[in-house]
Amino acid sequence: MAPQSSWLDISPESHFSLANIPFGIISTKSDTSPRPAVAIGTHALDLKVLAEAGGFRPLSSIQQHIAVFSSPTLNDFAALGRAAHREVRKHLQSIFAKNTPHADLLKDNADLRRTALVPLSDVQSHLPLAIGDYTDFYAGKNHAYNVGVLFRGPANALQPNYVHLPVAYHGRASSVVVSGTPIRRPWGQILRDPKAEPKVPVLAPCERLDIELEMGMFICRENKLGEPVPVDRAEEHVFGYVLMNDWSARDIQAWEYVPLGPFTSKNLGTSISPWVVLADALEGSKTAGIANDTELQPYLREGKKDNVLGIELEVDLITAKDNKTTISRTNSKNLLWSWPQMIAHHTITGCNLRPGDLLGSGTISGTESGTEGSILEQTQGGKQAVKLTGGEERKFLQDGDTVIIRGWAGEKGALVGFGEVSGRIEAALPQF
Amino acid sequence: MAPQSSWLDISPESHFSLANIPFGIISTKSDTSPRPAVAIGTHALDLKVLAEAGGFRPLSSIQQHIAVFSSPTLNDFAALGRAAHREVRKHLQSIFAKNTPHADLLKDNADLRRTALVPLSDVQSHLPLAIGDYTDFYAGKNHAYNVGVLFRGPANALQPNYVHLPVAYHGRASSVVVSGTPIRRPWGQILRDPKAEPKVPVLAPCERLDIELEMGMFICRENKLGEPVPVDRAEEHVFGYVLMNDWSARDIQAWEYVPLGPFTSKNLGTSISPWVVLADALEGSKTAGIANDTELQPYLREGKKDNVLGIELEVDLITAKDNKTTISRTNSKNLLWSWPQMIAHHTITGCNLRPGDLLGSGTISGTESGTEGSILEQTQGGKQAVKLTGGEERKFLQDGDTVIIRGWAGEKGALVGFGEVSGRIEAALPQF
Repeated sequence: MAPQSSWLDISPESHFSLANIPFGIISTKSDTSPRPAVAIGTHALDLKVLAEAGGFRPLSSIQQHIAVFSSPTLNDFAALGRAAHREVRKHLQSIFAKNTPHADLLKDNADLRRTALVPLSDVQSHLPLAIGDYTDFYAGKNHAYNVGVLFRGPANALQPNYVHLPVAYHGRASSVVVSGTPIRRPWGQILRDPKAEPKVPVLAPCERLDIELEMGMFICRENKLGEPVPVDRAEEHVFGYVLMNDWSARDIQAWEYVPLGPFTSKNLGTSISPWVVLADALEGSKTAGIANDTELQPYLREGKKDNVLGIELEVDLITAKDNKTTISRTNSKNLLWSWPQMIAHHTITGCNLRPGDLLGSGTISGTESGTEGSILEQTQGGKQAVKLTGGEERKFLQDGDTVIIRGWAGEKGALVGFGEVSGRIEAALPQF
Repeated sequence: MAPQSSWLDISPESHFSLANIPFGIISTKSDTSPRPAVAIGTHALDLKVLAEAGGFRPLSSIQQHIAVFSSPTLNDFAALGRAAHREVRKHLQSIFAKNTPHADLLKDNADLRRTALVPLSDVQSHLPLAIGDYTDFYAGKNHAYNVGVLFRGPANALQPNYVHLPVAYHGRASSVVVSGTPIRRPWGQILRDPKAEPKVPVLAPCERLDIELEMGMFICRENKLGEPVPVDRAEEHVFGYVLMNDWSARDIQAWEYVPLGPFTSKNLGTSISPWVVLADALEGSKTAGIANDTELQPYLREGKKDNVLGIELEVDLITAKDNKTTISRTNSKNLLWSWPQMIAHHTITGCNLRPGDLLGSGTISGTESGTEGSILEQTQGGKQAVKLTGGEERKFLQDGDTVIIRGWAGEKGALVGFGEVSGRIEAALPQF
């Protein structure tokens, strides 16, 4: 898409170009009620204010649903479906275009610009959708292999099912939080010496607190219980994408996860970026994922080849001493399975998805050093410290550390970016 | 509790005695909007109608929350907390007591009796609460052992962590359905010959469809993210209990569950009974669970000894030919962990629970033949058929089979029962 220019001053470096128009939920000091907005340049456009001023008047089909723009979550907007998202996004792009045919709606209305366009620095972001269920996939094959080696050895690193189906587990929806929410170091059961007999755990603050660099995807369209979604119709169920950091307590995880999977090691908090980048905005970033030469079951065979998103991803670690290091650079194409395949598999036994459900990709790692999506992998299980600027180093996260993930696709002037998801580690509770 | 008598005709066999007063959500032909009710004898008392007629007038502290009785779910009522539930239940008991001091509120008001007391046969039940997250524990030690033997052999049947913490996994909330909802046999990936190499699954309708007999518990009180619930305060977070059948596709489960746990084999549907029996109503049924001689971490040590519920449980299988067999009789005391221990562990790393969250006990099996909570166990992995009346037999569920679970505590005339949870197996979709 050729970068279109706007009457609004948007830096070519901005993640929130005219080509993007991501949706979120904001509140401000003057109006503390959460409401929908889009991010554009350094501003949020308050959609509630815009709607009340008649800014969606040209969209006749949206009029009967105009209440979605005063809802405290994006669930109702998401449930309108892909065609409506497309229409609303295009309309907002046309409102901001230099030669907008709708100058009266915002460009030439100074009063409305003052009330509807809020500097992002004055905005409080909230969870964009009320999350019904959260499912975490494990589609990052490099990560799955690396962690499999650490947990079970190279022979059993990837289980035989891994190339036949997108492995996943049900996650915890209540502990998904928006970027900026502090994450408290958890207490939990830890088996300090896995070789000692009998195996007796201790209760202690987590000693191996880690990140997981993931993409998240929100569902917009419901399927009924008992009715699987065909892989070639699955895109209709995708609302949009966020960055995700699925904080993980590795020591607690290692002790608890057999036989039913991770539980308390994962429900301590999962952070997501506040702005949902619509599926349409990322159509141009589709590319090939990790090749899978397995003969797939028909319900997982896709008609098209370039079926994963190619989002550039970076992870910064900022210590309490304010030393900032980019510890990983990778790309979201490092997945064995596409989002439509994940949806098709999630629903194969009839599971119903609902607008607001969140799916995680699984941790995204490249194959080279410096492209890992978790510290566990980068330090080879906590053995080899990551060197940080200022002479610091880390085997796992320390109290006061802040982790920031950034992600974007596209070219300068037309970047389709996510902004960032950040979280700071607070000290554990003093005792139990 | 001595059976109290009522001016309403209640059979001594009724699960819904004056000692019970369970809460649910109903609709009727004349009013299709879902609303709260309690079950009493063969009737539902419509709490919306009762509230509108001033039936809660004597409860001054409830007046400001009276809207909870016209809500389409019990979440708002649950969120009022244990003290409010207690007060409302006692008030409703007093209204129905033979010598009620509140005869004007219902007993002597023939018009209101006609509109507020609806025969249960005329009532459509709905999910009692909007479920935020659903977590399934694995606290039925006999079941965990039996299934562990089948999946991993006797040496690894129970993992070393099993006696140190209540093992659990996050389940799927969207596919929890109310009793009576049909369950469609799912398609899924099945590895027919686990010994063949290479391991290549087929896509087929589930061939080993099973039940899981469980108790479910609803949360009423929130804890903040990062703030664990102490075990001795956990009872304050319990709204009440339901019967649960966690339908399971064993063949799909066996192939998919390593390393992150069951996923599509479990999200095809989970059925619960419609009436939530309040925590207070079951105080008298507390008893000792399965002994655990492990030295527990402090956060799991309970002050009191009789800490699990003693609910009598029965499972009926009714075939398409209408042959009915009670295939299992057991008791919910067959758990290694109590509900307070499950809550304490669920929140140990800081996970926030919310009103409406559902926790499952895990499958409840006794140690004798005929007390198993799953067909998998009763048939020793599908090897030995269960004999049914009419000369039929089953290794797993067939299309047209209906499974009904019943549960109750207490004595005739003062039974505290759940009624039942039922589900009928529909044939799989014809093809994929």
